[in-house]
Amino acid sequence: HIPSKMDKFNAVLKIANKQTNLGFGLVSLLTAGGEQIFSSVLFRCPCNELNFMYGMVFLLVPALALLLLAYILSKKMWKMMTGFCQHGTNWSCCKRMSHCLKIIFQISTTALVAPSSWIAVALLNGNYFECAMTGLNVTDYSERLCGGATSLVECRKELHKFPCGRGSSINDREAVLLNIRAHSQILGWLLIASVMLSNLLLTCLARCTSPVSYLQLKFWRVYSQEESNLMDSYSMIHAKELAERNLESFFKQTMPQHVITPSNKDWEKIS
Amino acid sequence: HIPSKMDKFNAVLKIANKQTNLGFGLVSLLTAGGEQIFSSVLFRCPCNELNFMYGMVFLLVPALALLLLAYILSKKMWKMMTGFCQHGTNWSCCKRMSHCLKIIFQISTTALVAPSSWIAVALLNGNYFECAMTGLNVTDYSERLCGGATSLVECRKELHKFPCGRGSSINDREAVLLNIRAHSQILGWLLIASVMLSNLLLTCLARCTSPVSYLQLKFWRVYSQEESNLMDSYSMIHAKELAERNLESFFKQTMPQHVITPSNKDWEKIS
Amino acid sequence: HIPSKMDKFNAVLKIANKQTNLGFGLVSLLTAGGEQIFSSVLFRCPCNELNFMYGMVFLLVPALALLLLAYILSKKMWKMMTGFCQHGTNWSCCKRMSHCLKIIFQISTTALVAPSSWIAVALLNGNYFECAMTGLNVTDYSERLCGGATSLVECRKELHKFPCGRGSSINDREAVLLNIRAHSQILGWLLIASVMLSNLLLTCLARCTSPVSYLQLKFWRVYSQEESNLMDSYSMIHAKELAERNLESFFKQTMPQHVITPSNKDWEKIS
Repeated sequence: HIPSKMDKFNAVLKIANKQTNLGFGLVSLLTAGGEQIFSSVLFRCPCNELNFMYGMVFLLVPALALLLLAYILSKKMWKMMTGFCQHGTNWSCCKRMSHCLKIIFQISTTALVAPSSWIAVALLNGNYFECAMTGLNVTDYSERLCGGATSLVECRKELHKFPCGRGSSINDREAVLLNIRAHSQILGWLLIASVMLSNLLLTCLARCTSPVSYLQLKFWRVYSQEESNLMDSYSMIHAKELAERNLESFFKQTMPQHVITPSNKDWEKIS
Repeated sequence: HIPSKMDKFNAVLKIANKQTNLGFGLVSLLTAGGEQIFSSVLFRCPCNELNFMYGMVFLLVPALALLLLAYILSKKMWKMMTGFCQHGTNWSCCKRMSHCLKIIFQISTTALVAPSSWIAVALLNGNYFECAMTGLNVTDYSERLCGGATSLVECRKELHKFPCGRGSSINDREAVLLNIRAHSQILGWLLIASVMLSNLLLTCLARCTSPVSYLQLKFWRVYSQEESNLMDSYSMIHAKELAERNLESFFKQTMPQHVITPSNKDWEKIS
Repeated sequence: HIPSKMDKFNAVLKIANKQTNLGFGLVSLLTAGGEQIFSSVLFRCPCNELNFMYGMVFLLVPALALLLLAYILSKKMWKMMTGFCQHGTNWSCCKRMSHCLKIIFQISTTALVAPSSWIAVALLNGNYFECAMTGLNVTDYSERLCGGATSLVECRKELHKFPCGRGSSINDREAVLLNIRAHSQILGWLLIASVMLSNLLLTCLARCTSPVSYLQLKFWRVYSQEESNLMDSYSMIHAKELAERNLESFFKQTMPQHVITPSNKDWEKIS
């Protein structure tokens, strides 16, 4: 039963929408799962001077794509952007810019969930970072990596071959790869902790400066959701009425009856 | 039960139609799945001087076909084209051209979803690109590919045999194929990111210059859908009425009663 | 049936919410399971001078992340913080600070469950501590570890290679690792015991100084839960009413009827 499945899917979506934290958890889990699939199926380190670029592309570009996707899917974003350039100049420029920046900031905090969890999982996994770092052409870093190797020159020369399991000395290779993986995982944990911390601080700040109390905020959230739901159903009824009138008058070639419709200005006000 | 299945299928289609983003996701998923099937079942690199053409045909021609299919299936396209050459000259030529270009641009943004996801998945997969690039007859590129090989001349000579698993040196072959696959995947990710970015920017621009607010836009979308639904049912009723009258008057050899029918001009106006 | 599954999930959550001790047990179990997965899949000691930092990051940063997560998810926290900076000055500064500290303390006792169980399980497991301690660069400690070794100097030199199973003398290695693991497990048990003890003492203190009797406290708990449940349903109804009124007046272009809504001050009082 596809419709009943769709209902269930919708129910899950609604719950996730209501309890934003649950929704964030779901998004992070899906991202983590996707990252695992990508890193096991698609990722294959080229083991030449492309290493750095290849690893970085797998680490950062999917995160960028997820960020852009989140912006594209964000309703708030389009609510703000629609008619932005056509607005009357009843607002000063500065006020509009600050309002805009505030909303973009709000959207970004939500939109960054998936990209940051992609990067965090990728760093904890260590594959991409391993490949990228063996191709990094910085003398200091490669010298530090090969610090414990039997032959420094040879190790630095064969560094980019290590992720593919090639290279003359097995011991050197394993030591270098373990070292890079350790760096990667430390970075990953620090990223997770800093994301959590900044989330906590930002929410603190936002809540702290809010002019209304906790329960009232909760009430307004329920209200705005209720309103948007009702808006949809009212729009539907009104649109049906209007369409029926227009088509009837077209086929019967009579003048259309008057139906009360809000003006453009009214629409702008309630948006 | 095929009819009930059809109903379910219709329900899914309707939902996908309403929530364009969901529809795009579905199309991309189907395209990706199709690409996987094609690349595993049909694609077999010829491993001779045809390589480049064969790979490029598999990479680009299906995308072109999907693009044309999307144009063929687009309702807006045919709404615009119908009677385009017969239009009265009440519009100036420039205005008509610009109006036309605008609509073609709108359709293209929707129609490019499937082709771009085909190319992106194909590049991430790397099969087609591998085959195409080993057959590319450019000296610079093949020299760079064979840069790390034991014998440069032999590697360049046997380059087009590599995707079939033939060629004298296994190490050289693997290095070259990994290199091409890395190029392919980097291109794929960049394509995905750039498509997302251009999508975001275009939607931004379109929304930004819209004269109406967000909720009104939503209302007009509901209205136009409702109208087109009602149009279908009204047309049906009206057509039935007209046909019945005409046939009755034919069989009974009486003068047809007058039924109010909109004139051609009225039809043109509401289109 | 996803909705029925969601119902079951909700029921479990409610029971865990009501019986806080059961909820704590669940959280500890989940944390312990997560720790096992992390330590077996991701953790791989780098066996160089990074050892100490790597071990400590795996031991402490996840605990910190769990603590921050608990703060972010805490309802009480946000109830206190909302409008904290905007409050009227009818309270003295000191009183507000002490009230605040009390609530933060209350939240912390709940929030520390997951982090402390992470650290306890990690210490009992011993992996992270082993890796961290072999990289600790303190002369006293490494001399004590290598006390029974055949060659003190060699043992101290090769100490950081022990967790990877390398190092010249197998006997020395095993003795050192057993020693560190014993330290780790002793610390783990002490941590568990001290957490239990402090929990007991704190609850004792809180209950001992409470102005109301045991049954009354129980009653107040039931009352506050009942109130918050009713609050939700009343809010829902009120919000629906308000939304319906506003939208109706918008579409029919009439003046809105008056609906009684509590003022901001009333909201603040009941919060």
